[in-house]
Amino acid sequence: MKRKNIVIIATLDTKGEEAEFLKKLIESKGHNVIVVDAGILGKPKFKGDIPREKIAELGGRSLEDLVKDAKLGVEKMKILQVIIKGVKKAVLNLYRKGMLDGVIAIGGSTGMTIGTAAMKELPIGVPKLMVSTFIDPHYVGEKDIAIFQVPADIAGLNYIMRRALSTAAGAIVGMVETTMQTKPQKPVVGITALGVTTPAVMKISTMLKNEGYDVVVFHAKSQNLDELVEQNEIFGVIDLTPFELVRLHIYYPANVPRRERKDRLEPALKKGLPYIFVPGGLDMHIFRGPPEEVPKPFKTRKLYSHGPYVTLARTSKEEMVKLAKVVADKLKLAKGPAAVIIPLKGFSALDKPGGPFYDPEADGAFISELKLRLPSNVKFMVVNAHINDREFAVEVIKTWNELIKKIK
Amino acid sequence: MKRKNIVIIATLDTKGEEAEFLKKLIESKGHNVIVVDAGILGKPKFKGDIPREKIAELGGRSLEDLVKDAKLGVEKMKILQVIIKGVKKAVLNLYRKGMLDGVIAIGGSTGMTIGTAAMKELPIGVPKLMVSTFIDPHYVGEKDIAIFQVPADIAGLNYIMRRALSTAAGAIVGMVETTMQTKPQKPVVGITALGVTTPAVMKISTMLKNEGYDVVVFHAKSQNLDELVEQNEIFGVIDLTPFELVRLHIYYPANVPRRERKDRLEPALKKGLPYIFVPGGLDMHIFRGPPEEVPKPFKTRKLYSHGPYVTLARTSKEEMVKLAKVVADKLKLAKGPAAVIIPLKGFSALDKPGGPFYDPEADGAFISELKLRLPSNVKFMVVNAHINDREFAVEVIKTWNELIKKIK
Repeated sequence: MKRKNIVIIATLDTKGEEAEFLKKLIESKGHNVIVVDAGILGKPKFKGDIPREKIAELGGRSLEDLVKDAKLGVEKMKILQVIIKGVKKAVLNLYRKGMLDGVIAIGGSTGMTIGTAAMKELPIGVPKLMVSTFIDPHYVGEKDIAIFQVPADIAGLNYIMRRALSTAAGAIVGMVETTMQTKPQKPVVGITALGVTTPAVMKISTMLKNEGYDVVVFHAKSQNLDELVEQNEIFGVIDLTPFELVRLHIYYPANVPRRERKDRLEPALKKGLPYIFVPGGLDMHIFRGPPEEVPKPFKTRKLYSHGPYVTLARTSKEEMVKLAKVVADKLKLAKGPAAVIIPLKGFSALDKPGGPFYDPEADGAFISELKLRLPSNVKFMVVNAHINDREFAVEVIKTWNELIKKIK
Repeated sequence: MKRKNIVIIATLDTKGEEAEFLKKLIESKGHNVIVVDAGILGKPKFKGDIPREKIAELGGRSLEDLVKDAKLGVEKMKILQVIIKGVKKAVLNLYRKGMLDGVIAIGGSTGMTIGTAAMKELPIGVPKLMVSTFIDPHYVGEKDIAIFQVPADIAGLNYIMRRALSTAAGAIVGMVETTMQTKPQKPVVGITALGVTTPAVMKISTMLKNEGYDVVVFHAKSQNLDELVEQNEIFGVIDLTPFELVRLHIYYPANVPRRERKDRLEPALKKGLPYIFVPGGLDMHIFRGPPEEVPKPFKTRKLYSHGPYVTLARTSKEEMVKLAKVVADKLKLAKGPAAVIIPLKGFSALDKPGGPFYDPEADGAFISELKLRLPSNVKFMVVNAHINDREFAVEVIKTWNELIKKIK
């Protein structure tokens, strides 16, 4: 087994014993450990390989200044921001130098804030393990992070913590040793999905696989697709469900955590990847909560309860026109073969003849506006079918193959 | 490396490819894999070592009946309950036979429901890894489960999923290979804690360590302490912060997920472990939300904002009397040396002379009632100090040493 580099992030004052224990155990498995010290106040148990002075400096301050601020009672979050910035930079530098094959962080809420922030800087596929006293998805977002919840307080070594940390050390070692870091064997196509477009996704996936592609579906996780595009792991994108454009450009519900990237759609276009845009899911606002809790401006819309905790509201004609402008502007960035394919009979399982969100006038306004504004290098076509119809899937594949011919 | 047994839980119809991939990878690392099939409807990709027929049977039904129910449109949750029961039993049987050194489950929300339910049956310290498309603490509770969030849909193998699953396989293999399954070297004392009693916990922990004990602190995770007691890993308990009794026996806030055990305090008493009860935190109801959202019956109480999302309300005299009865009843179960130690100057950082929750009348009523009802085999003492005072910690240690003498 090749010797790997495993980075430990911890505050070496409050979690020094635990970090040292992890370090020794990982080293005993034949790997190299690099410790990043994210602490500032107490005396570190041992000196980090990237010491706290360096972290403060990378964060734009001197450690002395930070300690002074902390003692003067400066708001904790302000100081933490400097540390986070420093740890992020340190971790990214290590990764770029080939000195990070995996990362493990340990801590309570502060340690989790620092650790997960740094992990989010790393590419998808790099092993990341957060060891914490609790589990909270807000720290993790959509990133491929593993969280291990220890069964008692992290407050010095004891029998329970030794066992839990030995499990964690084993996990990161195993992750680093076993993760397949090979390149894709077949060209990888990313498809965006939601429940309301899943039948279309299934059909198109099967057809693409039959054509020799590897297909990855992103169910409301488009930021991971965007990241993988930037990691050069994606050959092309069928953006079948760009539903996030509604919240990004029309109305962002206050109770939905912001996860998607503002440059949604753009990375693949800028890279010049083969790209097909379909307006799947643009017929709906997605709100958390029952119909009574839908924000005021949408109370008079057609509403649809998608289970007890999710209410959907139909997008209006005016909103659809606005979305068409946004899409056209983004498609102007296309450096490679790109196409728009419109399913005339509706954009989601709800937007179909007889369905609760069927609104040919609003959808029609979107179509005309987009057609009008679309740059000439982007192919535009309409299919007289519903998005989830087989006929539509067939047309998507046909167009895909035409786009591919252009780059061959 | 000794060959270990790793159990995979998956629905072999919808996640069969992924389960097979994990199985092969884990086997290639020299370990034995046992696959539990939690699926019912589709054709399994391969036959599980514990097949679905067996799972249905362990759940109390026949697979044919379940399939029939599903086709007749019986509520999904009803069918799922049978599967969960069956998988729990299967996993526990494997563990008891020494055929489970670690468990990995894979799935979306259904797979996570089944997988985490089974994991919760296993003792703390047994490696548990849930591979899922999302992270949600409600599935995990306080259990020592690791959740690994994959970056795209689990819907067949592709480049992204192969890499993610290879990371997951490595993690469970490393966890199983590295977890220290040794017995404690020193007697382990569990202490229950909250922020408002942390100074007391720190002092008592240090003193106990100096006396040669291993100390584990459970910050609002008493159910793990109770489990470890039942796993025979705890020598004795200093129940310094039994705050859950307030919600369990007076008022359970609707927006707080129920995690603690109804038999809170009892496992250690029933086992006859050395046990000290201190009424830390019994001065407060803990509500989620700002003061405006405190439930109606408590709106007229003394309230205290503990950050923007937590409001505390002082327990009343009547409630304290009721709590004293509950505590006395539980202490009647004590089979070993047990004591109650009362800090006369207050039960938490807020309940002290001049503090917002200082209420000697309510606390006094608790003390008299408890003294009156306490069984004679439980030592009762009051200390003229606050719970967080050094003087109080010293008395706790003195009493602890007296209790220990009784069993030596």
